[in-house]
Amino acid sequence: MSNEAPSRRHFLGGTAAGLIGTAIEPARAQLAPSDARAAPAQAEPFYGPHQGGILTPMQDSLYFAAFDLSATTRADLIALLKSWTIAAARLTAGQPAEPGRQSTDAPPLDTGEALGLDPSRLTITFGFGPDMFTLNGADRYGLGAQRPAALVDLPRFAGDELVAGQCGGALCIQACANDPQIAFHAIRQLARIGYGQATLKWVQTGFSTANKTNGTPRNLMGFKDGTMNPTAAAAPPIVWAGAEGPAWMAGGTYMVTRRIRIALEHWDRMKIAFQEQTFGRHKTTGAPLGGTNEFEPANFTATDANGDYIIPETAHIRLAAPVNNGGAAILRRSYSYNDGANFVAERWPPWHQGIEYDSGLFFQAFQQDPRTGFIKLFARMSKIDALNQFTTHVGSAVFACPPGTREGGFIGQTLFTAA
Amino acid sequence: MSNEAPSRRHFLGGTAAGLIGTAIEPARAQLAPSDARAAPAQAEPFYGPHQGGILTPMQDSLYFAAFDLSATTRADLIALLKSWTIAAARLTAGQPAEPGRQSTDAPPLDTGEALGLDPSRLTITFGFGPDMFTLNGADRYGLGAQRPAALVDLPRFAGDELVAGQCGGALCIQACANDPQIAFHAIRQLARIGYGQATLKWVQTGFSTANKTNGTPRNLMGFKDGTMNPTAAAAPPIVWAGAEGPAWMAGGTYMVTRRIRIALEHWDRMKIAFQEQTFGRHKTTGAPLGGTNEFEPANFTATDANGDYIIPETAHIRLAAPVNNGGAAILRRSYSYNDGANFVAERWPPWHQGIEYDSGLFFQAFQQDPRTGFIKLFARMSKIDALNQFTTHVGSAVFACPPGTREGGFIGQTLFTAA
Repeated sequence: MSNEAPSRRHFLGGTAAGLIGTAIEPARAQLAPSDARAAPAQAEPFYGPHQGGILTPMQDSLYFAAFDLSATTRADLIALLKSWTIAAARLTAGQPAEPGRQSTDAPPLDTGEALGLDPSRLTITFGFGPDMFTLNGADRYGLGAQRPAALVDLPRFAGDELVAGQCGGALCIQACANDPQIAFHAIRQLARIGYGQATLKWVQTGFSTANKTNGTPRNLMGFKDGTMNPTAAAAPPIVWAGAEGPAWMAGGTYMVTRRIRIALEHWDRMKIAFQEQTFGRHKTTGAPLGGTNEFEPANFTATDANGDYIIPETAHIRLAAPVNNGGAAILRRSYSYNDGANFVAERWPPWHQGIEYDSGLFFQAFQQDPRTGFIKLFARMSKIDALNQFTTHVGSAVFACPPGTREGGFIGQTLFTAA
Repeated sequence: MSNEAPSRRHFLGGTAAGLIGTAIEPARAQLAPSDARAAPAQAEPFYGPHQGGILTPMQDSLYFAAFDLSATTRADLIALLKSWTIAAARLTAGQPAEPGRQSTDAPPLDTGEALGLDPSRLTITFGFGPDMFTLNGADRYGLGAQRPAALVDLPRFAGDELVAGQCGGALCIQACANDPQIAFHAIRQLARIGYGQATLKWVQTGFSTANKTNGTPRNLMGFKDGTMNPTAAAAPPIVWAGAEGPAWMAGGTYMVTRRIRIALEHWDRMKIAFQEQTFGRHKTTGAPLGGTNEFEPANFTATDANGDYIIPETAHIRLAAPVNNGGAAILRRSYSYNDGANFVAERWPPWHQGIEYDSGLFFQAFQQDPRTGFIKLFARMSKIDALNQFTTHVGSAVFACPPGTREGGFIGQTLFTAA
């Protein structure tokens, strides 16, 4: 925290002096010289070899925004990324979004709803979408040749019911924090700073109890979600790009997002036993069917007295297991979402129409290469996973998340020095 | 907590035994007889003279649902309210929604996503809307004569842009908790239990930092929100209905909800001084203009050197103050909302079209009588409050929240014994 960076608790200081047109002196952070650079409580680091919000233990809240880019020149895009980098570093440290003196005769350098709150473990993660490299064939920023092969256009999967307004984007910003107001505040500041250069395309809120649950958190289907996720120790080789791709992405990763609406009303009327066969796990313990412990290996060959697999052929965990996919693995970092309720009409027995939850899972997968990660895993699952009876993928996107940056650098800098 | 009520942490017990068709014995709560009725940590009481979620200190998350009633008889409606009362009491205590033995050969008695989580200070508050008393002139439940005069149809206010799908309802359930998954879980269980008798009409999520802020929390406009709210000591006579209305509502209250979309993008481009004149308060301190302390009385007569009021005639706090409204007062218990973003086109200078936040404030007011509370206060504000330049009321509803109930009773019981 530098000397000219007031902490958020002191932003604007005493505005008794804040009469119209009077520039006011921001109060300095109340820090002794010896701890002038100490991170505040509940702050996650922003600078580093990798971006935060990927291997960072999940926070309670997500606010995710995909943007279209209206910046017309490469210089404008670089300037935007520089401004965003500075603001993101400040926000994660609990400081007002923009540096400088706040005058009451000027619009806010920070919109204020985070004043008095700690950073709540805020992380801000940037990703570059295909449209940043070329858009309708135009290479606006001279980056087309640098598009990584791994930043692949996702194929159409069986069952996809994608809504254009919830897909794609030239750039994304993921804000995660232990408070939804902090996550919203972060995206809002960055969108505000990017006015005229980047425009919102779609957004998504999410929540998770990972932070509060003793063990694996549950999704809205009531099952433990993430039992097979790689541990922090095992994740890095799965997640981080390295020498196999372009040098500018070394230390970065590829993010796939899927907005998965879940027919909760239907799911809730299924027998527990059916739910368990759908997942391949017991609901309460999370143990694979036939087992007793959540973390024991699933026995995919065990059969019952009739010779049927105890973990059915269409069970979710059978299809998702790396062991059944040539070792393909991803890091999942998914948030449940609740976007209210809207009208649904079903024209087949048992017939139903009415208001249903627009809720489900905002699935996020991070991997070194989506072609050997999410795409490989989901191609078969999309066809035969028993879960598909209750899930519909309505949003989809893929982003290249560049490596982290150092103080003084900016997010994506390696791309622009490469191109 | 009765003996047959397993705590949520033990629901379904070990399901190693939970094979298809096997009824399993729920594990008992691990409670010694002496503390068998002790409330778990983070539990708010459900039973009592008043409903929870009104004077209860605000929680972090709101999930609010308005329902249409499809119950065809009075007996069906009473049965629904009895089932809901039992479930609501169980949920607030952190128990599975429905009592009884869970068989794996049956749909869930509880959908499971709250397993392993504490009650997170969950409160569940029921309200009865005009449509419960009569609907299109039909008195379905023999309750028409009991509709309180205070359960008034709100007038059309200046600037209203109400969307039918976000208004009204025969009944509402408000769930507040310190975790959004717990609030969602509660509404989901009650909607599930009410299947066939009550159907979702509209829903609303919300969040607040009241619980985390040292002092008055801030809304999405960055200002402290609730400075003038009555204290816990002052609130009861403002909130609770008494001898002035029907006996069945004594100890109840009237809730007005307004879904207020805020043009945050515009607000964020206003000068701080303009924002402060709009509210009539300093942004950082929350002090009334001309003052230095948040809680000092606003001086509505003070003028500047030009003879203009320091707190402008159209400032929000001038118009909202009880002292300027013949003492009219309400208890506000409002949550910010973030429902994503959608397309907005503005056809006047400075011209703008694009994706804007669908965010703002889900305003809730509780009072003894809306005619002398919200309606009186808002009638003038809706015409001249400077805030109106940035706010649009798109949802509206009014509900009679009956008094609380005792164990063995049910919510609304006094209404049915009166009618």
